[in-house]
Amino acid sequence: MSGTTPTQAPTPVTVIGLGNLGRALAEALVDRGHPTTVWNRTPGRADALVARGARRAETVAEAVAASPLVVVCVLDYPAATTVLAPAAGALAGRTLVNITSGTPEPVRELAAWATGHGAHYLDGAVYAVPQTIGTPEAFVLYSGSRAAFDTARETLDPTLGAGLFAGTDPTLASVQDMAVLAAMYGMFAGFFHGVALAGTAGISGAEITGPMTRWLTSAVATLPQFAREIDTADYDATETSTIDINRAGLGAILTAGRPRGVDDRLLAPLLDLFERQAAEGHGSASLARAIESFVVA
Amino acid sequence: MSGTTPTQAPTPVTVIGLGNLGRALAEALVDRGHPTTVWNRTPGRADALVARGARRAETVAEAVAASPLVVVCVLDYPAATTVLAPAAGALAGRTLVNITSGTPEPVRELAAWATGHGAHYLDGAVYAVPQTIGTPEAFVLYSGSRAAFDTARETLDPTLGAGLFAGTDPTLASVQDMAVLAAMYGMFAGFFHGVALAGTAGISGAEITGPMTRWLTSAVATLPQFAREIDTADYDATETSTIDINRAGLGAILTAGRPRGVDDRLLAPLLDLFERQAAEGHGSASLARAIESFVVA
Ligand SMILES: NC(=O)c1ccc[n+]([C@@H]2O[C@H](COP(=O)([O-])OP(=O)(O)OC[C@H]3O[C@@H](n4cnc5c(N)ncnc54)[C@H](OP(=O)(O)O)[C@@H]3O)[C@@H](O)[C@H]2O)c1
Ligand SMILES: NC(=O)c1ccc[n+]([C@@H]2O[C@H](COP(=O)([O-])OP(=O)(O)OC[C@H]3O[C@@H](n4cnc5c(N)ncnc54)[C@H](OP(=O)(O)O)[C@@H]3O)[C@@H](O)[C@H]2O)c1
Repeated sequence: MSGTTPTQAPTPVTVIGLGNLGRALAEALVDRGHPTTVWNRTPGRADALVARGARRAETVAEAVAASPLVVVCVLDYPAATTVLAPAAGALAGRTLVNITSGTPEPVRELAAWATGHGAHYLDGAVYAVPQTIGTPEAFVLYSGSRAAFDTARETLDPTLGAGLFAGTDPTLASVQDMAVLAAMYGMFAGFFHGVALAGTAGISGAEITGPMTRWLTSAVATLPQFAREIDTADYDATETSTIDINRAGLGAILTAGRPRGVDDRLLAPLLDLFERQAAEGHGSASLARAIESFVVA
Repeated sequence: MSGTTPTQAPTPVTVIGLGNLGRALAEALVDRGHPTTVWNRTPGRADALVARGARRAETVAEAVAASPLVVVCVLDYPAATTVLAPAAGALAGRTLVNITSGTPEPVRELAAWATGHGAHYLDGAVYAVPQTIGTPEAFVLYSGSRAAFDTARETLDPTLGAGLFAGTDPTLASVQDMAVLAAMYGMFAGFFHGVALAGTAGISGAEITGPMTRWLTSAVATLPQFAREIDTADYDATETSTIDINRAGLGAILTAGRPRGVDDRLLAPLLDLFERQAAEGHGSASLARAIESFVVA
């Protein structure tokens, strides 16, 4: 099997770090015909991959030297930094794609270090789990070297997920990742509140998740409009939901929940933003104006 | 135009309350050929509908008497109760579908009152805006009289949205509605945090909303699995994300945000649930176990 055009041999790729994600990626690369070199701190984790057709490198330096494209996928940035240190001399000219999750500051340091050793550094945030990599819903936010991104897209898109370029500052993928996950965590908090509230009326999680997921899917589609309002600081759009309507709506949900034993702590901070906006006279502005009470300039 | 089978004349319907939603519903009913009677506190709001083919009732009692199916859509439950009071004597045998938003207690009272006067009472929570009513994504959660639900489905599904029956307790639609909206509010809170965080790196709301909505759509699909874990109190499923991974992930997001001026108040309460679970030794349990620290039994 090959994910590239018939006239072109699949690019050799090295995968460093064979945890759940790295292993799934290496398997997919082998299956698509890429000459695949692997390395893992605990070498036994490479055995099945070697049996499948991968080549085991004895050292990280050897692993980096083996392919023009090197993917790093370990637990965190301290691990990535430790793992790569002995391979500094082999980095020149390589495309180094680091899909380890991290926050901006360590990303910046590792990117500077790798670039200093002549690598084309690309940082990536993967939106997939081992089971979904390479499927149409999988995607990867990248930032750093544009040349490295072009290489990564060509070689990794079919096996990992569709690549999106966030910019040449290598920390941008990390910042965007945190922002995206913040939205997800908010949704999880609301989910917990909703499931708890439904439970007080004997409605199971499975039952409430039906209409909940259906409505969330619609509500997700309203976010771009709110984002436009925030970007332009123009909150007068009449077709959107107002601060007052949502203050009443969320207020009623919290008020009805309390006597049923559903604590308001997860959502009360949002109601507080609505209250502040209303107190400042913005009750008829769009719901999105709540962010003005959140961001302390 | 007719939304019913050719052999059957469209059911006469009365709409009481001609605000944004009621007006859109009445228009759609007229357009589908239903003999449509309308009433609104401020009568002028019915003018355009009358020009379109609706019949104006002079009193609420006359409006209720005019059709076997009566839809009420006013601001809130106090308004619904006030509006319907003079029509008590006309309710016997009517199907009364109330799509005004409300919390369980007033729903229970109004349902008991209407049922006491011989109406088949159905409470509804509409998941649509005036622009999307009758589209495939629109849906309505109903609870109350099963017979009224069957009537409502047949007559209202094409013009309003797909009807789902939550049960014969009339308050169930209201409780489910609050639970569904709680999840949406959580998502909005996370959206605000994410947009604020992205903004600190010069990333616009429009830009971050791209990957954010893409990932939220995937994340919504994980909720049924979490709901099953909560229903069974079995949080050991190895294929889901653990408390520890999410404690580290959300912790890093809040830690990285603070020095950038992004307050943690919207998401810190969720992190606190993760911390409590970890402190009780459940770090390797599924993320969904956080609800056990939220619900105070
Ligand atoms: N799994 C996913 O669905 C997913 C999705 C998106 C992003 N990610 C990110 O991808 C990265 C890897 O995730 P994963 O699920 O593959 O993790 P994992 O299954 O826990 O594997 C962790 C890997 O890191 C290695 N490692 C840990 N500490 C190390 C150290 N000090 N030195 C050298 N190697 C070390 C481990 O080596 P040993 O085998 O020797 O322990 C192992 O290969 C994480 O940053 C994660 O956030 C994962
Ligand atoms: N719009 C939506 O997208 C939507 C979606 C789902 C659910 N809902 C729910 O549907 C209901 C109506 O929403 P809407 O958008 O149509 O509201 P709206 O445009 O504000 O209209 C409110 C309606 O209620 C009437 N009303 C208010 N107080 C009254 C009183 N004391 N006595 C009699 N009539 C009174 C108004 O009559 P006047 O014309 O005389 O003021 C008007 O007809 C609300 O409960 C809302 O939460 C709306």
